[in-house]
Amino acid sequence: MFDYKLLSALAAVVEQGGFERAAQLLGLSQSAVSQRIKLLEARVGQPVLVRATPPAPTEVGTRLLNHVQQVRLLERDLQRQVPALEEGGLPERLRIALNADSLATWWAVAVGDFCAEQRVLMELVVEDQEVGLKRMRAGEVAACVCAAERPVAGACSLALGAMRYRALASPAFIERHFPKGVTPQALARSPAIVFGPDDLLQHRYLAALGVEGGFIHHLCPSSEGFVRLTEGGLGWGLVPEQQVGAQLARGELQELIPDRPIDVPLYWHHWRHGGELLSLLTDHLAAAAGRWLVPLQR
Amino acid sequence: MFDYKLLSALAAVVEQGGFERAAQLLGLSQSAVSQRIKLLEARVGQPVLVRATPPAPTEVGTRLLNHVQQVRLLERDLQRQVPALEEGGLPERLRIALNADSLATWWAVAVGDFCAEQRVLMELVVEDQEVGLKRMRAGEVAACVCAAERPVAGACSLALGAMRYRALASPAFIERHFPKGVTPQALARSPAIVFGPDDLLQHRYLAALGVEGGFIHHLCPSSEGFVRLTEGGLGWGLVPEQQVGAQLARGELQELIPDRPIDVPLYWHHWRHGGELLSLLTDHLAAAAGRWLVPLQR
Repeated sequence: MFDYKLLSALAAVVEQGGFERAAQLLGLSQSAVSQRIKLLEARVGQPVLVRATPPAPTEVGTRLLNHVQQVRLLERDLQRQVPALEEGGLPERLRIALNADSLATWWAVAVGDFCAEQRVLMELVVEDQEVGLKRMRAGEVAACVCAAERPVAGACSLALGAMRYRALASPAFIERHFPKGVTPQALARSPAIVFGPDDLLQHRYLAALGVEGGFIHHLCPSSEGFVRLTEGGLGWGLVPEQQVGAQLARGELQELIPDRPIDVPLYWHHWRHGGELLSLLTDHLAAAAGRWLVPLQR
Repeated sequence: MFDYKLLSALAAVVEQGGFERAAQLLGLSQSAVSQRIKLLEARVGQPVLVRATPPAPTEVGTRLLNHVQQVRLLERDLQRQVPALEEGGLPERLRIALNADSLATWWAVAVGDFCAEQRVLMELVVEDQEVGLKRMRAGEVAACVCAAERPVAGACSLALGAMRYRALASPAFIERHFPKGVTPQALARSPAIVFGPDDLLQHRYLAALGVEGGFIHHLCPSSEGFVRLTEGGLGWGLVPEQQVGAQLARGELQELIPDRPIDVPLYWHHWRHGGELLSLLTDHLAAAAGRWLVPLQR
């Protein structure tokens, strides 16, 4: 077995953001915490922490942390069966990767009550919907929301529904760039907004309209920033329709080509033996996600 | 001098998100583009691109890209003085690091018209306000918005103003966790929301109230997600007041302790010899930022 005294010290330093607060939490001196981290590093043969302010886990440190969280989840299940073990400790943490647009829209409403009732803290990692699964494969998260259906080994996936995106721009932008209507030629010449290098939604939209070759674009790796840039007339881009219902109703944003959405499927991936809390969250999402997502087209 | 044919190939592959589109943009065959990248790698003695879909620059690749962008900015100035050089090429790109909260609030409104008039594309990098300056130092961006005043060597800084944050929570959260009012003890026991390991605002707020030791928190590295979690009653957190004016007016979010804001200063850092376009943007921000930020307290 691993030495969980050492692993808990690592978790405390990272979760509390420093050696001093970790020491207070664990009821140890700061030098005792520091000693445990050094011992852990001697055992794994490499650094587990970058000594910055606040300290950040190295790659191997992140994997150890995820392991600690998974063990804690399993301990939680055991404590329910054997209540005498209960230490009345800290709430559980669930480390979950999800796409920025889910986080900016339905996620908090969907899990809010669950977190309060189950007394669980979320440690969220934002990843583009195409790449969140890499975090699962690397063992860095307990679950993820992403666009890929196929689970990694040891995990299950569950279809949640789809996010509906529409290609939007401000009326001023449309007037400036498409005075004669939205033609493929005009589209290729007017700036788009792209979330990041993994975001190919705009490429797909243009390809479906027969626009070939590259196109000019801003890069904006923030869901809310994306909407702000669109409203500000800097470019056009594909935005989740539920994020901008008010702007569409007020005419502050308009769809480039009426009723031409792109649906992005979302799947919930979770470890098969991730413990009872993860199973409860899975059941909760299975029942609730349909309220915010559109049904998947098969 | 560097071989800019090679550097342009790198820029095209990254900006277009692939070799095929880069080739179309440059009017070359795909193998010619690939050849140029290989030649560039042979010269710098290490990979400049990670061959993923889409390709991503390595660390040295990112520095080369920023150099290309800086050279393009200088070329743009020259072209204005010597119009015969004009090739009618692509719009300029400005790579800028800024904090997520600026991007989620005032940034797009402040620069929208500027981008349209100057025909400039923004390549935005989101960094916590405490660490954006590292990107300047590493030569990865042309400018940044961050909380530190002192510029890196070769750059200037300009005070833009401050973002005003207030500690907010949903009425249900306040009722559940603070039935007897917001005491330091109750605060330390109720979940906070923290943007990421570099976000110490919640720590500062608690420290000022005399709360010592660690505190439990969710981690949510998304500005919009942060507001959603707060609205959803998952925790309390410090939110820019201009981001939630409507929610405050409707009572969907309430300040924990009335009128106890934290102001975070924001500075604009830019290279001293970054070209005319960067100077114009600097003048523009100097004149406009005060409309969205509160004056700095000295």
